Amino acid sequence: MQNPVTVEVTRGNIVESRHRGLGIVLDGDGKSLFSFGDPDAGVFPRSACKAMQALPLVESGAADAYGFGDKELAIACASHSGEDAHVALAASMLERVGRDASALECGSHWSSDQRTLIHQARTLEKPNALHNNCSGKHSGFVCTCAHLGYEVEGYVDYDHPLQADIRATMESLTGATLGHDNCGIDGCSIPSYAIPLRGLAHGFAKMVTGQGLEPLRAKASRRLMEACMAVPFYVAGTNRACTKLMQVAPGKIFAKTGAEGVFIAALPEQGVAMAVKCEDGTTRAAESMIFALIARYFDKDGDTHAQLMAMANHSLKNWNGIEVGKVRVTDALFS
Amino acid sequence: MQNPVTVEVTRGNIVESRHRGLGIVLDGDGKSLFSFGDPDAGVFPRSACKAMQALPLVESGAADAYGFGDKELAIACASHSGEDAHVALAASMLERVGRDASALECGSHWSSDQRTLIHQARTLEKPNALHNNCSGKHSGFVCTCAHLGYEVEGYVDYDHPLQADIRATMESLTGATLGHDNCGIDGCSIPSYAIPLRGLAHGFAKMVTGQGLEPLRAKASRRLMEACMAVPFYVAGTNRACTKLMQVAPGKIFAKTGAEGVFIAALPEQGVAMAVKCEDGTTRAAESMIFALIARYFDKDGDTHAQLMAMANHSLKNWNGIEVGKVRVTDALFS
Repeated sequence: MQNPVTVEVTRGNIVESRHRGLGIVLDGDGKSLFSFGDPDAGVFPRSACKAMQALPLVESGAADAYGFGDKELAIACASHSGEDAHVALAASMLERVGRDASALECGSHWSSDQRTLIHQARTLEKPNALHNNCSGKHSGFVCTCAHLGYEVEGYVDYDHPLQADIRATMESLTGATLGHDNCGIDGCSIPSYAIPLRGLAHGFAKMVTGQGLEPLRAKASRRLMEACMAVPFYVAGTNRACTKLMQVAPGKIFAKTGAEGVFIAALPEQGVAMAVKCEDGTTRAAESMIFALIARYFDKDGDTHAQLMAMANHSLKNWNGIEVGKVRVTDALFS
Repeated sequence: MQNPVTVEVTRGNIVESRHRGLGIVLDGDGKSLFSFGDPDAGVFPRSACKAMQALPLVESGAADAYGFGDKELAIACASHSGEDAHVALAASMLERVGRDASALECGSHWSSDQRTLIHQARTLEKPNALHNNCSGKHSGFVCTCAHLGYEVEGYVDYDHPLQADIRATMESLTGATLGHDNCGIDGCSIPSYAIPLRGLAHGFAKMVTGQGLEPLRAKASRRLMEACMAVPFYVAGTNRACTKLMQVAPGKIFAKTGAEGVFIAALPEQGVAMAVKCEDGTTRAAESMIFALIARYFDKDGDTHAQLMAMANHSLKNWNGIEVGKVRVTDALFS
């Protein structure tokens, strides 16, 4: 199946680049409400599924045992920019279990946000694992292991009991079989599994509605999503898409990006969830797709719809601030 | 016409993202030797055509009048990283005509190369126009204007005589009509024109062979390309694709990247030139395409071929240095 062109980038009056994509919106029963491209294609959710991977932290009782509130739960679901507040929060989570950055197995990298990188360059010799965009998730992993009595060392490995717990959780939510056949290694070294986009979206629809979930999981799911919506800065950071999206309509949009052009969202009031993947892995296209797709579920005459569509279709400026082109979604998202 | 998938990005054993592209190889007569996708599609060459835009600097006699050697001519064709040596060289060109950074109309930006950005953050309060990746080209523009007696102010405007000279030069080389209808504004504020990829490649084939060019232009073209091949650091910078490519086989490969997934190359010994565009504008795909396309013109058993194919098909490592996938070209580049 050919995925349609969903996002165009123009220069002057001419289309300069084109992005193809796939996407689907589902309700809690798994009923497809809208789709484009091939929604049954296998997609690595990458960081878009972090809220699923954080469920054991809550379900195990670790989050309560260590007194974690919205900030800690939000950063456990985050791909943060490595701003000082993110780094401090992840460090404080590790302190609760007597650990520090040396327990994290995610590796280190400078911030991918330019403003934050400049700050880091001026204040750090080099980044450590707490600056990794996944350090909140990994701190949550370390705390879960500590609470459950799992060996912390090696918690990123496919055969570690924490990864087995995460695999079982994600299989149950998505309906997909996860194993060596569809497994790759993520940027932060944990297993990542290619999952049909439909299953990924259905998992988030279950999480946001509670439909088909046992009460403990339904409660944990809502608690994680509500934490992210309450303090969206801790899910991404200053000027980041996930943060801005959750600020547009507080409490009404849960959203999370993933590398290689993935984005998921869940809307508590409408009881739907959605997932998109840009075929070529480009973030700008995934963002415009999810913004436009979410806008479909808000009143066409309202502010939220207008703000979301202004984020989906936006101008591109050059180094002198001159408008040189646009990023815009195509009719494939509205047919 | 549907552009084929030319580059795949894998994770584990699964293709995670796919890039489509178009490309063509031509000789000096304009005879197509190989193509894929739609080579007649209009493409903004962006920075890939900087060597064409630098022709007036040489043809006008400005380069000789100011004593410019390989370094100055190379940086006039460059999208450099803003390393200290690049900045100093552009400043020295402006000094020859009694100007400084304030004459440049390209705007300012921090380096897009992470290592250089970290250095800049530690040594600068903020970048100026000399740090712009186009500052060498713009310094060449200012010198050309000074030599020809053109008003320097406004040299980026469509109606400025320098831009008219560049337009006439590029029309003659590419065979395309350039005007308001196919004009956009580039990142550095000068006009950029959508040109059929075939015409762009033919223009570089003329430049590298001299075929169909008057002697002055043929000589100026070879002088600019030879300068770039002699000191490729000044065309891009440390660890940059253009620089590495021209270092693989010194004097045998001229190459230049452009924004939104464009790459051109010209091979003096074979008398051919080529141009590729990644449909979605992604640099990683444009790089793999041009590396593989150039490799076709080197002995399959030789070191140059092996090095180019190792650059086209390369592994992706995560933050811990673990190989997690590959970028690889498809059969579309070899059929």
